[in-house]
Amino acid sequence: MSDMALSAGSENGQIPAVQPVHNPVLEAQLHHIIANKTMPTGALGRVQWLAHRIGMMLDAPAPMLHQPQLLVFAADHGIAAQGVSAYPSDVTWQMVQNFLSGGAAVNVFARQHHIAVHVVDCGVRHDFVADAGQPVPLPYKIEHGTQDSTQQPAMTAAQCQQALGNGMHLVRGLPGNALLLGEMGIGNTSAAALLMARIGGYDIADCTGSGTGLDRSGIQHKTAVLQRALQRHADVRMPLDVLAALGGFEIATMTGAVLQAAAMRKVVVVDGFISTAAVLVAHALRPAVLDYCVFSHCSAERGHALMLRHLGAQPLLALDMRLGEGSAAALAWPLLQSACLMLREMASFASAGVSDRTSG
Amino acid sequence: MSDMALSAGSENGQIPAVQPVHNPVLEAQLHHIIANKTMPTGALGRVQWLAHRIGMMLDAPAPMLHQPQLLVFAADHGIAAQGVSAYPSDVTWQMVQNFLSGGAAVNVFARQHHIAVHVVDCGVRHDFVADAGQPVPLPYKIEHGTQDSTQQPAMTAAQCQQALGNGMHLVRGLPGNALLLGEMGIGNTSAAALLMARIGGYDIADCTGSGTGLDRSGIQHKTAVLQRALQRHADVRMPLDVLAALGGFEIATMTGAVLQAAAMRKVVVVDGFISTAAVLVAHALRPAVLDYCVFSHCSAERGHALMLRHLGAQPLLALDMRLGEGSAAALAWPLLQSACLMLREMASFASAGVSDRTSG
Repeated sequence: MSDMALSAGSENGQIPAVQPVHNPVLEAQLHHIIANKTMPTGALGRVQWLAHRIGMMLDAPAPMLHQPQLLVFAADHGIAAQGVSAYPSDVTWQMVQNFLSGGAAVNVFARQHHIAVHVVDCGVRHDFVADAGQPVPLPYKIEHGTQDSTQQPAMTAAQCQQALGNGMHLVRGLPGNALLLGEMGIGNTSAAALLMARIGGYDIADCTGSGTGLDRSGIQHKTAVLQRALQRHADVRMPLDVLAALGGFEIATMTGAVLQAAAMRKVVVVDGFISTAAVLVAHALRPAVLDYCVFSHCSAERGHALMLRHLGAQPLLALDMRLGEGSAAALAWPLLQSACLMLREMASFASAGVSDRTSG
Repeated sequence: MSDMALSAGSENGQIPAVQPVHNPVLEAQLHHIIANKTMPTGALGRVQWLAHRIGMMLDAPAPMLHQPQLLVFAADHGIAAQGVSAYPSDVTWQMVQNFLSGGAAVNVFARQHHIAVHVVDCGVRHDFVADAGQPVPLPYKIEHGTQDSTQQPAMTAAQCQQALGNGMHLVRGLPGNALLLGEMGIGNTSAAALLMARIGGYDIADCTGSGTGLDRSGIQHKTAVLQRALQRHADVRMPLDVLAALGGFEIATMTGAVLQAAAMRKVVVVDGFISTAAVLVAHALRPAVLDYCVFSHCSAERGHALMLRHLGAQPLLALDMRLGEGSAAALAWPLLQSACLMLREMASFASAGVSDRTSG
């Protein structure tokens, strides 16, 4: 694995600055608050680690998350024509309808936790028509699906910039201080695997999984197809060029959303393999985005564990899920709330009159 | 590891029968319902596994959890006098006050998820006096702490039966269809480690951890103390005799609660090392209790992972926590609700008009 040389300044004029989390006074304050909660030192493990991190992200000793917004970024992929998915491309728009009707897993879990869901058409191969009260997705369509990256770049540089700008625009218009990522797009584990292989410097076989449910021979075929795409764009190395050549409209839009959310110091709750790939691209452009990311889970999709390690990410859940949509982000959400509530509501040894640790 | 010979019939006259989960028609129905949800096969991983299990426990294709009750079983331990804990025994009653005041971690997380919390005095070395509106724990005190099991049995057989009966009585009086387990007792990782070693047949070193925060030499000392307790009761092998000789009042009361809850087909949400030890004892008496248990997490306490494996348990969370109290049971609770909501609210391929998997 080798890090890519970056010249971010030249290629991303409109990409916002992201300030690293840095506040030593608050850091010491959070450490002190947590150490004095009525529990043995470190007994809340990852929950207190999360509390500390969210405090730093929101720059507050008693942070409060409010009005969480989950965006489901949807688009189609030209590379799906190569038979890299177990489901037909039409499932993308059908699932968009399902999200709009509230029947998908992400809807169920988001309703449970009072998370607002917005479905974004970033490039679905379907025309959504508002009629008879049927809702439509937010219209950020670049085109009816990308081109097949085994043949040509998935999108043009201008389309890529447009998608990034769409993501930034979307997030600027959202209330609240937390963004949860979700996505839908038949073929998008292929695009994410390609981004991971090129940006992370990994062998494509280590990045390629069963997606929606390929069997072993299906994965072999998919791996060969993705290898061809990488060869087709062998010279493409700069992050935005890689995103354009190998990515997808929903991934590019999500990348813009992540950059904007981090610039605004929102907490970004990452879902699975595809949304982590968007973070990977955002991180290549603005490394400090990671300071604002909470990784909800480690997916069962091959490649996700490695991509998380690449980013130094410590996911909260490992429930053998591989759905995307934002379903795991929504499931992890109450843990973020618990972390904040722990800081805000839990008693200290002094306030509760509990003896602290003995010396022996 | 060797299984103990059991003669449950002779020693547990009053322990209720626990029916194994068995309903092939419902099993097929749940399988069909889950397979037709709008997602790739198996994509919700452990969440759909949990949905299936809860459906079977509650004997319903669309189960609904209601009025969850979390019991915090508290008691003191004679063995604490041997210096096996980093905190003094007074912390037990002080933490009971903290639970009653709503300031502990379990209170914070239970409030978040609308879980009722009841604090039970099973044998705390303190007299709680109701005055000036100060609440008191539920009075199920057997005695002011157990005896030191390195010197004599922790409790008499009659006390053990009384504690079991208390736990059964408590659960019979609770509303709802879910019981969450929590506990507090300085010294109770020692009691739980002893039960694990004797009932599971493990080396005491594999069962002994840092508890509230012992360092390496503290753990060495604790291990030596526990080895002495095991030697003191080397001939004690029957589950209830082991519980009386080596256990604790809160563990025995919890064991009764688990047995009663399983007999009533309530969902039992197990917390950490100590509550799992109570399940271990209950399982030795009535193996079918496991059919009704959901294991919320794998604790950072040494021994818990091994005890879970012994029971064939698959915990939901692994957040490096080691607090007890029921804090992890409360954190895992929304996942149980998500599992039920998935069964109840998620659309099927047919209802949502989404294409199912292609043949190729």
